Amino acid sequence: MELKVLGSGSATPQLERSPAGSVLTVDNFLILIDCGEGTQFRMLRHKVKISRLRYILISHLHGDHFFGLIGLLSTINMQKRTEPLTVFGPKGLDEIITLQLKHSGSAIGFPLFFRTVDTDSPEILFEDEVIKIRTFPLMHRIPCVGFRISKKVSKRKILSEKLPSNFPVPYYNLLKNGHDVVDALSGKTYLNSEFTTEGQPEKIFSYCSDTIFDERIIPFVENSDLLYHEATFSQEMAERAYMTHHSTASQAAIIASKAHVKRLILSHFSSRYKSLDHILEEARAVFQNSFLAEEGQSLNF
Amino acid sequence: MELKVLGSGSATPQLERSPAGSVLTVDNFLILIDCGEGTQFRMLRHKVKISRLRYILISHLHGDHFFGLIGLLSTINMQKRTEPLTVFGPKGLDEIITLQLKHSGSAIGFPLFFRTVDTDSPEILFEDEVIKIRTFPLMHRIPCVGFRISKKVSKRKILSEKLPSNFPVPYYNLLKNGHDVVDALSGKTYLNSEFTTEGQPEKIFSYCSDTIFDERIIPFVENSDLLYHEATFSQEMAERAYMTHHSTASQAAIIASKAHVKRLILSHFSSRYKSLDHILEEARAVFQNSFLAEEGQSLNF
Repeated sequence: MELKVLGSGSATPQLERSPAGSVLTVDNFLILIDCGEGTQFRMLRHKVKISRLRYILISHLHGDHFFGLIGLLSTINMQKRTEPLTVFGPKGLDEIITLQLKHSGSAIGFPLFFRTVDTDSPEILFEDEVIKIRTFPLMHRIPCVGFRISKKVSKRKILSEKLPSNFPVPYYNLLKNGHDVVDALSGKTYLNSEFTTEGQPEKIFSYCSDTIFDERIIPFVENSDLLYHEATFSQEMAERAYMTHHSTASQAAIIASKAHVKRLILSHFSSRYKSLDHILEEARAVFQNSFLAEEGQSLNF
Repeated sequence: MELKVLGSGSATPQLERSPAGSVLTVDNFLILIDCGEGTQFRMLRHKVKISRLRYILISHLHGDHFFGLIGLLSTINMQKRTEPLTVFGPKGLDEIITLQLKHSGSAIGFPLFFRTVDTDSPEILFEDEVIKIRTFPLMHRIPCVGFRISKKVSKRKILSEKLPSNFPVPYYNLLKNGHDVVDALSGKTYLNSEFTTEGQPEKIFSYCSDTIFDERIIPFVENSDLLYHEATFSQEMAERAYMTHHSTASQAAIIASKAHVKRLILSHFSSRYKSLDHILEEARAVFQNSFLAEEGQSLNF
C-alpha cells in the first residue's frame, strides 16, 4: 500500500499546512480518508487520479475534515464517471451533500452511495477478497471514528519463468490460490511449492484523526504497519490537548509503542507551531520510528 | 474603492486559476463577492483581513461560487468575532450553512445574518450613508444575480491647514456637510467654499458572475467605474457559451462598451485555456480598456 499525505494542518487555516486529506493506494484503486477544504486541488497538484477513487472515508464532521467533499464530488460528477463510489461517514453527511447538490442543480450521474458509520461501536465497514475496512470510536468533541484498513495476504506469486510458455491460463489461478495442478493432457504435476512463492503478507494501515489520548484505541491499531495519529500539540500543551479532545506528540507515540506498530506518522499540527522539530523529537523520545506528515509525501509499506 | 481578485477560474478545478472570489474595499470595511472553495486560504495568502469583512454577496449556488463559504464562516466563528456579518445570497444558502454548522457542533457566536436575494427582479439589498448595493437578475442555468455597488459622493474635504488650530471639533462636521460656520465666540464666519473642497465623487462597481450574453443587463451596469464580467470562452466557442449560459470575451466587451463603463475586468476563464492572450485581444478589439483578472491583483478606482 501507499499513503499519500495531502494535508497536515488542523482547524485554524494555515498557509504552511493544508487541512486533513490522505490517499491510500490499494492495488489499482484509491481510498480517500478525510477531505478538508481544497483537497481536490491538492489531488490535482500531487497527481492523484480522481477517477481511481473507490471509497471515501470521513472520520467526523468538523470542517477541516470534510468541507472539501462537496467540491470533490461535484468535480467527479462533471467528469462523467460511471464507476460506483461509496462515501462512509457520520450521520448527517449524506443530507449535507444532497442538499447542496439539489440547490446547485446538479443531478448525480454516477452510482454514488452513502453509508453511515456507527460512531459508538467498532464495526466492519467493508470487506472483500482484497481489503477489510474497520472503524473504531474515537473520543473527540463530536462523534468521530478511526479506521483500520488491512490489505489481505495476497495470492501466491507464480514463478512464470519456470512454467512452459503454453501453460494453460486457467491453471494460473489454481496455482495462485495454492493448489497443485495436474495437466490433463500431459499428466504432468506442477507442485505449488515449486512453481510459486508466497504472496505479499497482510498490510495494515490505521488512522486516528482527532482524538483525546485514549488507550482504549490500542487494540484497534495494534500491529499496524503504519499508524497515522494526530499530534495537534506538544506535551507542554497537554492540558489544552485534554480540554479540546486532542493529543500531544508523546501521547501519539505512547499509543504507537504500546500497540507495537511499525511506523508512526504524526499530523494535524496546531497553527501555533511554525517549526515542528520539537514535536518530532518529543515523539521519537517515546517511539523512535516516528515521522512528521507533510503535504505531497508518499509512504510505501 | 479597491477590488482584489482572489480567483479567476471556472467550475472545473485548475491549478493555475482558483475559483471565484473578489474582495471590495469600501472605506474601512470589506465586501466579499462570491466565495469558491479555498477562498479563506487565498484571503490569508493575500493578506485580506477577515475581521474587516462586513458583507458577503453570493451570486448563485454553483459550487465554484460558494463552496468556500462554510469554511470561511467557521473560521470567522473561531476568531471570536463580535461584529455583525451579513450574507446575501439565493434561497437555500442559509439552510446549507445552518445544516453544516449544526452537524459540526459549532454554535455561531457572533451576529450572523442571512438575507435571501430576489433572483427574478432587481432590488436594493442595502443602503446607508456610504454605500448602496443593488442586484439585478442574470440569465444562467440556475437562479443568479449580478451586483451593482456604489460608494456615494463622500462628504466635503476640509482644508485643515487654513483653519485655526483651536477650531472647535463640532464645526468640522458642519463644514464636511457643506454648511458655512459662524463661530459663536469670535463671530467670525467660515465660508464653506473657502475652507473645503469637493469630496470623492460617486464610484460604481458592477459584477456579473455567470451569465449568458444578455443586453438587458446594460442599464444595471451603466457608467460603472469598473465592470467585472465573466468571459468563460473566446468567440470561437460562442455556441458552447450559449449552450452553457456563459459569455465570450467579446460579448463581455460589448456589454462594457454599450454600458459606457470606464474599465472592464474579465474573469471566470475556462480550464481549456492555458494562455489568455487571445481572450484579452478579443475583448480589446471591442472595448480597449479591458483587463484579465489574476489572483492577488488589486485595482483601485
